[in-house]
Amino acid sequence: MQQIFPKRGFDKSEFIDRVGKAQKVLSSRKLDAILLSSEADIRYFTGFMTQFWQSPTRPWYIIIKPEGAPVAVIPSIGVQLMKNCYIDDIHSWSSPAEHDDGIGLLLQVLQTICGSNTKHLGLLMGRETNFRAPLSDIIKLTTENSQIKCFDVTGEIQKIRMIKSPLEIEKLRFICKLVSEVFEDLPNWISEGLPLSDLFRTFKIKALTLGVDDTPYLVGAAGAGGYFDIIAPPNDQPLRNGDIFMLDTGCVWDGYFSDFDRNFALGHASEKAQIAHQTLISATNEAVKSIKPGITTCRDLFHTMNHILYPDIDQSNLKSDDVGRFGHGVGIQLTEPPSHTSWDTTILQPGMTITLEPSIIYGEKDFLMVAEENILVSETGFEYLTKPCSKDLKIIK
Amino acid sequence: MQQIFPKRGFDKSEFIDRVGKAQKVLSSRKLDAILLSSEADIRYFTGFMTQFWQSPTRPWYIIIKPEGAPVAVIPSIGVQLMKNCYIDDIHSWSSPAEHDDGIGLLLQVLQTICGSNTKHLGLLMGRETNFRAPLSDIIKLTTENSQIKCFDVTGEIQKIRMIKSPLEIEKLRFICKLVSEVFEDLPNWISEGLPLSDLFRTFKIKALTLGVDDTPYLVGAAGAGGYFDIIAPPNDQPLRNGDIFMLDTGCVWDGYFSDFDRNFALGHASEKAQIAHQTLISATNEAVKSIKPGITTCRDLFHTMNHILYPDIDQSNLKSDDVGRFGHGVGIQLTEPPSHTSWDTTILQPGMTITLEPSIIYGEKDFLMVAEENILVSETGFEYLTKPCSKDLKIIK
Repeated sequence: MQQIFPKRGFDKSEFIDRVGKAQKVLSSRKLDAILLSSEADIRYFTGFMTQFWQSPTRPWYIIIKPEGAPVAVIPSIGVQLMKNCYIDDIHSWSSPAEHDDGIGLLLQVLQTICGSNTKHLGLLMGRETNFRAPLSDIIKLTTENSQIKCFDVTGEIQKIRMIKSPLEIEKLRFICKLVSEVFEDLPNWISEGLPLSDLFRTFKIKALTLGVDDTPYLVGAAGAGGYFDIIAPPNDQPLRNGDIFMLDTGCVWDGYFSDFDRNFALGHASEKAQIAHQTLISATNEAVKSIKPGITTCRDLFHTMNHILYPDIDQSNLKSDDVGRFGHGVGIQLTEPPSHTSWDTTILQPGMTITLEPSIIYGEKDFLMVAEENILVSETGFEYLTKPCSKDLKIIK
Repeated sequence: MQQIFPKRGFDKSEFIDRVGKAQKVLSSRKLDAILLSSEADIRYFTGFMTQFWQSPTRPWYIIIKPEGAPVAVIPSIGVQLMKNCYIDDIHSWSSPAEHDDGIGLLLQVLQTICGSNTKHLGLLMGRETNFRAPLSDIIKLTTENSQIKCFDVTGEIQKIRMIKSPLEIEKLRFICKLVSEVFEDLPNWISEGLPLSDLFRTFKIKALTLGVDDTPYLVGAAGAGGYFDIIAPPNDQPLRNGDIFMLDTGCVWDGYFSDFDRNFALGHASEKAQIAHQTLISATNEAVKSIKPGITTCRDLFHTMNHILYPDIDQSNLKSDDVGRFGHGVGIQLTEPPSHTSWDTTILQPGMTITLEPSIIYGEKDFLMVAEENILVSETGFEYLTKPCSKDLKIIK
């Protein structure tokens, strides 16, 4: 099928808008600058996109100032690519360096931007973040430097990134559509005896052929009657009649992730497995239908799903499950805030793209089953980005 | 061509050996434990392999004790998979958690392992490392906790990982062989008018078809007469007669990376481009031939290559170039220590797998060209893991 591809990249106005939102945080928190170090944050605010992040060798820094485009303090290998991004000044050093791999230059540039007084610096320090730099440099920056005071802006930056722009949504809609088609086609080429590793390999080839840029995430499992593990790489076991198997994949187009799975049975499935699948889809459907933008919280979604998954459990005395949540945000990263848990009170807003990912334990062997969909919270309710899974477990004959 | 695949995974003895080496560091540095947090280190010492690291949400911790297998402090979603690894105890929590996402449990477990006195904890804090946890938790662990004293073991751990075991080498040899074949086949299917993005997509499909598990890294560029950027994602520009283009790829088999590139010209190439390519390959060949295991250093390799690349420059007054080095280690990560720079005095030892990656500026427009090979340092000298590139730039007619 010929795909109609959206336009790649973003116009400058998109980054002006994103950085502008961060600058409002900067102003309201009375900060001198916000310092970013992770692939996702640097890409989000500047458009800098490269797989070079696979190399852990070099640190990269971006500084958001009170006004204008961000400033880059980066290894010289990245200057050429950074020039095409939403960036004001680029300061670079030849990295890797023996003694000072950028931290000295970063401190100098901060001095120039923020002045010689105590600098009030916003950093991402909280849940689901990581400051991507050697620990010795982090300590130099945060605790050994008396001229720098660090403030956590995790909540504010995550809140900005949670609401996707129309162009971001277009990319997410597209990647979810592509991967839905790959899953729809799967029963046409799968057969008994195919090793799980070959199934994964073929899945990736089909996804690339259809237009996916990459499949950075493809995990799953297969087993007679069910599976236990949901984050494992494939083994070389051939698929057998009676196996239930699941592929959970994060595919990327133009830097935006889909994140959903599909369950299949080969030949036949037990009644318990079929009921488990129906229960999962019911939980998802009820959660999706319940979405009232501006009112419903992630906690509400969690309870709606949990009530269907575990109707007999006292809802006021919930135990946490192994997966830890029933879904999350999705975008530049495979998993982003918020989380559908009993404690996340984030209110669902138009422009949020989320997964719904209920999981259930079933059968005498305590098999695990997970079903996942990707949803856009719209002005009026919701839109499935994925082609929704049918309630009945797909049995491939 | 039917490939003969090596066996996947490692026996337990491999991990006993690896952890044993870390325990010698622990003993000689008088440490109570070593704490690891990154994907590569956790995989290296326990065998825990999953693409679930794509999700930045949850922190993972592994503790190496003075004796026995390591202890895991991990999100419960990973327990099932961790059970199959070289691990003693597994402590888990349901993650993500609202207030304490594992750091409290980690401190408890450290208390149990190391006792209630001041704990001397080894961490990777130096160049090319990153402690993968929220900054607020890192601060709780390293600077706010008076009972924990942190010591940097970067050098020691990197030194252990630099020397590959026979089984690691087998995997690296295999992935380099596969990717060499993909590159060899490229002139058979490439043609004028093919957009660079389609070239990349087809390359990945060919690599998967031949047996590669994944292509996490594929960057490159094309341009009339040459290219400037070596870390960019592909654009949709069609290849034109007279273009010089380069693909640099890190492909993976069973968790081990190849990392090399190939340059091509479409139709024709300038004399300067051809000389640039010949110079790069000469530099590589001379460097490879110069390797005396136990004697030659990375710095020596740098100077050997630099002398050929820039014969007119005063070798005592070298300026750093934009790439920052002429090659590096390769293994579990796309780039690992050591680095072929003017300052890295690491002695090349049998079992090291390295890239040689000289780069050169040529022509009136200051085009950049990079050529890369993967080499095993053997007992007597070297072995090309890649099928070495011919000296002449490949011109595709």
